[in-house]
Amino acid sequence: MASLLKQPLKLALVQLAAGADKAANLSQVRSKVLEAAKAGAKLIVLPECFNSPYGCQYFPKYAETILPTPPPKDQAPSWHTLSSVAMEAKAYLIGGSIPEFVPDTKKYYNTSLVFSPAGNLIAAHRKTHLFDIDIPGKIKFKESDVLSPGNKVTIFDMPEYGQIGLAICYDVRFPEVATIAARKGAFLLVYPGAFNTTTGPMHWSLQGRARAMDNQVYVALCSPARDMDASYHAWGHTMLVSPNAEVIAEADEKEAIIYGELEGAKIEETRKGIPLNTQRRFDVYPDVSVGTVRFEE
Amino acid sequence: MASLLKQPLKLALVQLAAGADKAANLSQVRSKVLEAAKAGAKLIVLPECFNSPYGCQYFPKYAETILPTPPPKDQAPSWHTLSSVAMEAKAYLIGGSIPEFVPDTKKYYNTSLVFSPAGNLIAAHRKTHLFDIDIPGKIKFKESDVLSPGNKVTIFDMPEYGQIGLAICYDVRFPEVATIAARKGAFLLVYPGAFNTTTGPMHWSLQGRARAMDNQVYVALCSPARDMDASYHAWGHTMLVSPNAEVIAEADEKEAIIYGELEGAKIEETRKGIPLNTQRRFDVYPDVSVGTVRFEE
Repeated sequence: MASLLKQPLKLALVQLAAGADKAANLSQVRSKVLEAAKAGAKLIVLPECFNSPYGCQYFPKYAETILPTPPPKDQAPSWHTLSSVAMEAKAYLIGGSIPEFVPDTKKYYNTSLVFSPAGNLIAAHRKTHLFDIDIPGKIKFKESDVLSPGNKVTIFDMPEYGQIGLAICYDVRFPEVATIAARKGAFLLVYPGAFNTTTGPMHWSLQGRARAMDNQVYVALCSPARDMDASYHAWGHTMLVSPNAEVIAEADEKEAIIYGELEGAKIEETRKGIPLNTQRRFDVYPDVSVGTVRFEE
Repeated sequence: MASLLKQPLKLALVQLAAGADKAANLSQVRSKVLEAAKAGAKLIVLPECFNSPYGCQYFPKYAETILPTPPPKDQAPSWHTLSSVAMEAKAYLIGGSIPEFVPDTKKYYNTSLVFSPAGNLIAAHRKTHLFDIDIPGKIKFKESDVLSPGNKVTIFDMPEYGQIGLAICYDVRFPEVATIAARKGAFLLVYPGAFNTTTGPMHWSLQGRARAMDNQVYVALCSPARDMDASYHAWGHTMLVSPNAEVIAEADEKEAIIYGELEGAKIEETRKGIPLNTQRRFDVYPDVSVGTVRFEE
């Protein structure tokens, strides 16, 4: 059987410290992506909301209109920064997420953009499960006050390497997304995400490790750095998890780049040892990856 | 909405030290179950393979024929011990598992038996996913050399309390089982299980916490105590996990009884805070609990 990951891949997860100045954030993106590329990374990931602080009050102000593709330069500076820096870095670049505005429908989305080393947009994911939670005395947040949800599971292909499942933050709590991507052949699940100082210690690492364990693929969680002066305190702790659910590398809460060398053999070894893939009982329960999954919107 | 758990329930998980002497094991079962009942437990759980050491070489020797119900006394001493001690304890009793032999088909199963406080058998689960793994240099085990798999998802009802999802050990690695039980209304998932000193530190706690987090229900894992003189070294670490994925109580590797007070309000509070239940996107992916699930065999 061909490996899910055709050749080893050096991955970089950039735990960016994004502030209120969009231009400064984009300048920092460029610097960090080039630093990661210089270190040999061929896939570089940015966090959720890398061009702005995180918060409903910020989404309209920092939103960009990215359709049709390519968007005019003055209308979508984040889009163009990602495209040009991917080219400059000669790497795949997952632009964690930015707020997206669609003028026709007047809707906002939390959208991740993926660029090839040629600077072309090759995938986009709109956060499918909006972050609406209310833990009394701890944290209340309602993305749906401003954002609309995406309507699909996103898998994209890097032809020299293989396929990646991409979703954003709160999407990780819905295991179907991970399972579908893994069963469709992804070797890696990437979640740009900004958990906070309440949900982070409770579930961040557990989410990453559970998705890896159940699907026997690599999992990458990429958070913004924590800014105690911001209204939302991101958990940080960007991490890479092995197909056997070990934490390979983890940041603390400060700005950092986390690296990992991904190998197809590690996935095969994990699946050979504990062969869940061939042991599932789809005669007893359905396979969520079969049937009416929406991959397009 | 009515609570999933109609009244608080005191649960006891008995991390039994089972040896080669079946009669001694059953005597120990009686003693421990009555001890747990005296402490107020109304649901008492025994580990996987509580009447024998764990290992393919032991299954035929310790197997009992339990069909038709009730089986003759001399043929099914474990069955009758469970029935009588449940009555004596005035508690629900999950007899973790015993090897079961079906003379008609000459098949062996790894079977969990559930008795009511009246001593009636109210549910049985045959391990659906057999433990066939091979981690080089660490552990190789092939239950399917001797055992046949069960063919269903098991949920049973304790009318005064609510519903419980029951599966055995390696079944826990297949999240569909947990998800189906939780979505059908279970407040608790019970897994009698004997992970080992390789898979235990890797995944035991992670499995329990992941099932709890994703389904927002209580999860109980009940292991045999570790016996370093046995051929299989059970992990122990019997544990109870909250609907928010916190470990409420955990044993070490020695014989122990772990207690927990389960409350419906804790499930409701967890689901109100992080309302996964109403946020799932069954327009984007299927619901595994709907459709062709086998609940009978």
